[in-house]
Amino acid sequence: MRRHIYLRMKSMAEARELFLSRFDLSGMLAAEEIPTVTVRGRVTAAPVWARRSSPATHQAAMDGFAVSASTTFGATPEKPKQLALGREAFPINTGHSLPLGTDAVIMVEHIPDPEADPIVVEAPVFPWQNVRRIGEDLVAGEMVLPEGVEITPWAQGALLAAGVTRVAVRRLPKVRIIPTGSELVPAADLYRDLPPDRLPEFNSVILAGLVAEAGGLPEVGAIVPDDAASLTDALKEALAAADVVIINAGSSAGTEDYTYQAVAELGEVLVHGVSMMPGKPTLLGVVDGKPVIGNPGYPVSAVLSFEQFVAPLLAGMVGKPIPPRPTLTVYPAQNLPSKPGLTEFIRVTLGRVGDKVIATPLPRGAGTITSLVKADGLLVVPALSEGLEEDRPVSAELLVRPEDLDGTLVVLGSHDNTLDLLATLLKRQAPHLRLSSGHIGSQGGLAALRRGRAHLGGSHLFDPETNTYNVPYIQKYLPGVPLKLINLAWREQGLMVAPGNPKAIRTVRDLVRPEVRFINRQRGAGTRLLLDYLLKENGLEPSLVQGYDREEYTHMAVAVNVLSGTADVGLGILAAARALGLDFIPLTPERYDLVVPETTFREPRFQTLLEVIRSREFREAATALGGYDLRDCGVIVWEQ
Amino acid sequence: MRRHIYLRMKSMAEARELFLSRFDLSGMLAAEEIPTVTVRGRVTAAPVWARRSSPATHQAAMDGFAVSASTTFGATPEKPKQLALGREAFPINTGHSLPLGTDAVIMVEHIPDPEADPIVVEAPVFPWQNVRRIGEDLVAGEMVLPEGVEITPWAQGALLAAGVTRVAVRRLPKVRIIPTGSELVPAADLYRDLPPDRLPEFNSVILAGLVAEAGGLPEVGAIVPDDAASLTDALKEALAAADVVIINAGSSAGTEDYTYQAVAELGEVLVHGVSMMPGKPTLLGVVDGKPVIGNPGYPVSAVLSFEQFVAPLLAGMVGKPIPPRPTLTVYPAQNLPSKPGLTEFIRVTLGRVGDKVIATPLPRGAGTITSLVKADGLLVVPALSEGLEEDRPVSAELLVRPEDLDGTLVVLGSHDNTLDLLATLLKRQAPHLRLSSGHIGSQGGLAALRRGRAHLGGSHLFDPETNTYNVPYIQKYLPGVPLKLINLAWREQGLMVAPGNPKAIRTVRDLVRPEVRFINRQRGAGTRLLLDYLLKENGLEPSLVQGYDREEYTHMAVAVNVLSGTADVGLGILAAARALGLDFIPLTPERYDLVVPETTFREPRFQTLLEVIRSREFREAATALGGYDLRDCGVIVWEQ
Repeated sequence: MRRHIYLRMKSMAEARELFLSRFDLSGMLAAEEIPTVTVRGRVTAAPVWARRSSPATHQAAMDGFAVSASTTFGATPEKPKQLALGREAFPINTGHSLPLGTDAVIMVEHIPDPEADPIVVEAPVFPWQNVRRIGEDLVAGEMVLPEGVEITPWAQGALLAAGVTRVAVRRLPKVRIIPTGSELVPAADLYRDLPPDRLPEFNSVILAGLVAEAGGLPEVGAIVPDDAASLTDALKEALAAADVVIINAGSSAGTEDYTYQAVAELGEVLVHGVSMMPGKPTLLGVVDGKPVIGNPGYPVSAVLSFEQFVAPLLAGMVGKPIPPRPTLTVYPAQNLPSKPGLTEFIRVTLGRVGDKVIATPLPRGAGTITSLVKADGLLVVPALSEGLEEDRPVSAELLVRPEDLDGTLVVLGSHDNTLDLLATLLKRQAPHLRLSSGHIGSQGGLAALRRGRAHLGGSHLFDPETNTYNVPYIQKYLPGVPLKLINLAWREQGLMVAPGNPKAIRTVRDLVRPEVRFINRQRGAGTRLLLDYLLKENGLEPSLVQGYDREEYTHMAVAVNVLSGTADVGLGILAAARALGLDFIPLTPERYDLVVPETTFREPRFQTLLEVIRSREFREAATALGGYDLRDCGVIVWEQ
Repeated sequence: MRRHIYLRMKSMAEARELFLSRFDLSGMLAAEEIPTVTVRGRVTAAPVWARRSSPATHQAAMDGFAVSASTTFGATPEKPKQLALGREAFPINTGHSLPLGTDAVIMVEHIPDPEADPIVVEAPVFPWQNVRRIGEDLVAGEMVLPEGVEITPWAQGALLAAGVTRVAVRRLPKVRIIPTGSELVPAADLYRDLPPDRLPEFNSVILAGLVAEAGGLPEVGAIVPDDAASLTDALKEALAAADVVIINAGSSAGTEDYTYQAVAELGEVLVHGVSMMPGKPTLLGVVDGKPVIGNPGYPVSAVLSFEQFVAPLLAGMVGKPIPPRPTLTVYPAQNLPSKPGLTEFIRVTLGRVGDKVIATPLPRGAGTITSLVKADGLLVVPALSEGLEEDRPVSAELLVRPEDLDGTLVVLGSHDNTLDLLATLLKRQAPHLRLSSGHIGSQGGLAALRRGRAHLGGSHLFDPETNTYNVPYIQKYLPGVPLKLINLAWREQGLMVAPGNPKAIRTVRDLVRPEVRFINRQRGAGTRLLLDYLLKENGLEPSLVQGYDREEYTHMAVAVNVLSGTADVGLGILAAARALGLDFIPLTPERYDLVVPETTFREPRFQTLLEVIRSREFREAATALGGYDLRDCGVIVWEQ
């Protein structure tokens, strides 16, 4: 196993400059001539000159009769002129060419009887009246389009009007994507279902999409095995066929070494390692005058590195600058420490709560592709910074449209599977609204409401002393805040175990058996409080539970630990167990409520959500998930 | 000839509401299931749930050795543990699945000799250290994408990671475009050159492009002859095959009647006539529950009407909202009276001069497609307004990117063919810069500079008294303004006549011959002043020149009048005559200068332009146009 050494890591700006300045971007691609009717979205390779005038003939600008103006001179209602049809006056429609010898159009409305012959003319027209003269729009020889502009549909129209049936445009750059990672199933096979043990090679699908969106023509090559010789051969072949080559590192870090070797052997490595995160293991090089990019293997790194280096490269070659993303001032929901020396991109969800847009960070791992899928924006932590501070305003790059944020309701708190249902039904009911849910536990949700970080909370906090849910906690954490507690559902909590229950777990007491490995929820989660209550009720010490300290943030994550054998048992809801086919030992029903401050309750968008909560569709869909009792759904169970 | 009557014209907002509210936009198209690898840009028709977890197995998060953590407990440098390869420790690369029985990865960097067997372990790892656990990114059963969202490349990646190989997405709406106007050459034939007397039907090409950009699948039908029965038949056929039908009016106003008849016969006309300009003759209807649009025939009307009614219709069906155009406060360069009762869209060029963005109107006719091609923005005059006032700030919709305006140099004044050359070479040299030229005559250019409407002027004003160019005029109109006069070229002015010079024109004296029809330039144009000077020098009265009052704004427009026989002779430059193949009788060389205020001169972007002016490429290209003498090109001939 050989380790590669980054020669000298470059900053993003240095790397971009070193790379992009190496090429004559706008001159790299030859022109090609294609039919004007297919040219939309392409970029002119040279100015385009009109080959004919438009209109190409004198044309009627009104419906009426074409005449020679001089034949109408002196006409008045008292002394009208009479003009014979087909000789002195010719019926004509707007846009039609004037017959030879005519130079004006009398509007049909001005002729007392348009069906008569001869027609009677009661007022003169002057020469070229109601006529679009030849060349009025475009003159032959005039420039229709300058060089280097993108051709719009209406520019296509102008080109055709100007008699230009073929246009010289910049060729589209062919971008060969070389995936690596021999153990993966090739992208070409991803049309069909894969056996559960085979991993899909999907980075090339992502990169091909990004290439297409940057204006290039992606070609995905076969997966190259992880060795230097194969990669060098694949690179040679790619360079013969394409204008740009992207080698996408496989899951193995070894590929990066081979990429370095191949590019260094055939050409020149310009940049090896960029001080960005994700995206650090980026390689930028040139072989035979063509750009070669070694793109990192983790999907988030692959996307962010592409955006920094390949997207501007292609945009420059194609001639279509990439508009900068809109930015917005946002307030981080928590401190976000970041490694100095690296520019970090943090994916966040965004929601406008009160007068602030709150940025809630998503998982920061480069392998977590869902963090990009769920992201509404990116926070960029500069290389010199040690991180971002909670509630200190910072600029975010938007991945959604600014108006989407105004339609976003942010629910933070406990995780429940019906929240996804609610989001779906809400969007179906009101396409401009989104429900964005963050899973930070019931107590986390109350804290977020206290700090104005969310529109509503999701909570199932049981209080053994009063034998009630949520109210005592709200009175403690949100004293005096006018709010309503609205029930979403009663749900079944219980122990999730592997199918067939191999460790024969029956009750909470089984959790302290030495061979039983438990997986817990995070501090502040209602389910964890429930566990603590159940342990106490049974006189069991938490320290006796093996795995009490291993925390997950959602029911589903607990369930997957059980499914994969990482743990033998976890506490959670029936819906999660059922989703993954686990066995379930019911322990207790519990109440899951939404905590809705009055300020939220009064908003029309919340009222729309409430309609959805109270709808038949929601009841039916939630019931179908299993383990839910909707008897109090939508009921205001308490308010303060 | 039948005239149609607008039943009751609707405002744009009324019309849009009447039309769009008639359809269940998001439910109109059934879902279709397509392979995930081809799904980019499509919109989900239902939430998508993960079919497998990602990672689907426990995976190494580092390169190193997979071990069972418990075998390393208690290891220290002094008392290391030894683990046999292949039995207790397994070499593993990042991203690969952990072998059965292992639950942690020791980083290769922490093993003193990674090539040894057994390996020596000097520190313990804890369970799941350096491991991406199953489901860390995505858990089977979890929602990957909600309903109604556009699928990004990275969402494709997430779907494939989640084992989703096919996705239910909204079908794309098929939009049948029915062109009318029997006299036109069908769009399908526009691949090849047309005979000069045939007119191209290009509206369907424009509309097909707009449909595609709004997310629909355009289909252009055959041109339908101008009669009610044919149109009704074509509409029936279109409705059987497509989801939306657009009937594009031909050049004849008659089509509008037939469109009304066809829609009224088969279904319901919702809107007939909209109080917008261009775009008034828009018809909106419904047949068999499908939207049918009668789109106006003039190309600018066709585009603007499409944007108001068809684009939002398709966006709603497809599920991709159209982002509103960015807007900007601009200052009209002149009064723009507008008809009350109609919302008018005025196409303008834009340039940032000083701290204001100046909006210079383009021709307002609905047939002038170049006005859209050249437009940087649209001014919208509200229906209740009588127009926009010069220099009164108003909001403009941008058709270019906001940053393009910062790179725009505005030259107003006399028209010269080398300005197009200059624009081309400037863009080639500095792609972020644009030269926007407006042709308002030499004196117009000086007035524009005085009012801060332009960065520089183009001028060839001859002063007979001093026998010089431009200086006396500048001293009169721009007294005391620090500026430089920079020569662009000497050029040949003369008489442009039809090929073969049929009227045997030789000198200025021939212009007063009774059978000679002249075409003049507008007041304030240097060429017009030259004519006046030449007439005076020859003792001729302007009133004796037939056509002295007929004005055009450019050399090329004068030339096309001569070419088309609208006039027998005009005064202009050799380059214009040569571009259209006219004969040319040289009269005098004249100096064409750029008037450059110091504020402009000092700007880096002007310095870039000056480099282009002084370049060999410009000299050569200008010389090739004919009639130019570049001996003083780029020389500062005077300053104040």
